[in-house]
Amino acid sequence: MHTNQPTPFRIEQYMRQQKEIVDARLDELLPRADAYPEIVHEAMRYSVFAGGKRLRPILALATGEALGGDLRRLSLLACALEMIHTYSLIHDDLPAMDNDDYRRGQLTAHKKYGEAIAILAGDALLTLAFQVLAEIPSPGQSAEITLRVICRIAEAIGTSCGMVGGQVVDLITQGKQFTADELNYIHSAKTGALIRASVDSAALLCEAETEVRAGLGRFGTRIGLAFQVVDDILDEDASSSELGKTAGKDRAEGKATYPAMYGLEESKSVAARLVAEAVQELNFLGERADALKALAQFISIRRV
Amino acid sequence: MHTNQPTPFRIEQYMRQQKEIVDARLDELLPRADAYPEIVHEAMRYSVFAGGKRLRPILALATGEALGGDLRRLSLLACALEMIHTYSLIHDDLPAMDNDDYRRGQLTAHKKYGEAIAILAGDALLTLAFQVLAEIPSPGQSAEITLRVICRIAEAIGTSCGMVGGQVVDLITQGKQFTADELNYIHSAKTGALIRASVDSAALLCEAETEVRAGLGRFGTRIGLAFQVVDDILDEDASSSELGKTAGKDRAEGKATYPAMYGLEESKSVAARLVAEAVQELNFLGERADALKALAQFISIRRV
Repeated sequence: MHTNQPTPFRIEQYMRQQKEIVDARLDELLPRADAYPEIVHEAMRYSVFAGGKRLRPILALATGEALGGDLRRLSLLACALEMIHTYSLIHDDLPAMDNDDYRRGQLTAHKKYGEAIAILAGDALLTLAFQVLAEIPSPGQSAEITLRVICRIAEAIGTSCGMVGGQVVDLITQGKQFTADELNYIHSAKTGALIRASVDSAALLCEAETEVRAGLGRFGTRIGLAFQVVDDILDEDASSSELGKTAGKDRAEGKATYPAMYGLEESKSVAARLVAEAVQELNFLGERADALKALAQFISIRRV
Repeated sequence: MHTNQPTPFRIEQYMRQQKEIVDARLDELLPRADAYPEIVHEAMRYSVFAGGKRLRPILALATGEALGGDLRRLSLLACALEMIHTYSLIHDDLPAMDNDDYRRGQLTAHKKYGEAIAILAGDALLTLAFQVLAEIPSPGQSAEITLRVICRIAEAIGTSCGMVGGQVVDLITQGKQFTADELNYIHSAKTGALIRASVDSAALLCEAETEVRAGLGRFGTRIGLAFQVVDDILDEDASSSELGKTAGKDRAEGKATYPAMYGLEESKSVAARLVAEAVQELNFLGERADALKALAQFISIRRV
């Protein structure tokens, strides 16, 4: 007997499948580990294939699917986003920055390959990401769109309100009294901007109309912020073995986090509210947005 | 009384004028030092305006002039090249890499701002360079050309035969017996690739014909190699106060250099031969190549 109840979206299965697509494409795009000079290629692959969830590329793919975009072009965008994310993790983990020895339960790049190679592997991943973006097949007018995608991503990882700016403020507020403005800046710039850009740039690549892009932009802003709030909560709440890195480190170092400013319970309700608002923003897309909505939910319930 | 003797090209004056154009454009493109978060913007400007000769941007402008290209578009390319060059200097100077305290007679970025901000300022300059490239006004078909310029530059600073690859091999051969192949790889990849790309990418942006680009490519390869050979020679020959950095450091650290492999005199004759060959390659451009030829000569006679 049929009911009108919609089948629940199987997010774990979806993410597993999409991750396989992304990983296969990353494997094609990264220089082979036996290509000269081997050590930097090994280091790039070591960090890229260190067990990430591929949230950013999967968001880009899901956005593209919702808009009926070209999956071959989207997969290049997706891989570039993951390369950029990996570069940021490698550099953030360095002794001069967050000084982390473990990430996802394995040695960080500089512990494994030394600081010099880690810095260079990060630099190389950032460079390769832009190369991959510029190599998105873009005949005729679509080349202009690809240039706009490159600008959009560069902004999201730059200094003014992007990833590098967020990391700078994260560093300079450490161990100091921080303001709500600084906390919001860090969260929106350090993590939020690239997550939002994963959605935005996919919508741009699909040449979605302005209103569609605006709605997806509001979705992206909310899940980006929710992601970082949940990250802060997990740092307080989860054990080191669950996280694969040192738990409670943020508070020990006096970092500007949501729980430090608003407490754990309030932070959890902020995260839940942000995700609910994000999901609402996608109603205009109907069923086509099921994967995106499920990804938003995943962000709020993830354990690592 | 007139003679048929051509006026000698006034290279110092030319370089001074072109540097002013590049510096004014860089000042427009870099975030203001008082824009939030200030410290990273200060660090970016500190390193960009540390007294560089602007060789790479001037090569791009001179190539564009020889081909009658659009100076507004070329000036953006030129600035992106200088941002990339500055990022590479900041990261190369880090303690984990070449560990230099001074560069052009002033403190290196990490000595002035700390390692974390130096790493991030380098990351930000690399990112901004790609943004500036993607923002080159590129109506219609020229957007495809701009994407190719981005690819060309990304290759030149990547791992396979670009700048990061060169720095990797420079690091791993340090203090070890090195082969002629390794030495050639370092010289061609670490410095040569971006110098050649400065010429190549300008020719590409001007949509020069294949044969013209091939000739300019051979010119670029030779001056790129000559530049690094002269750099090695200066490290042995000049005093620290002339160089603005520690002289003789390469040999002391057992670096793979031309003088270390071939001796000082042979290295000098290699540099002179490369420049002579480079100049020959440009004969087909006639007088239009005067500035490029003078720049090649400048490379071989420079003292710092």
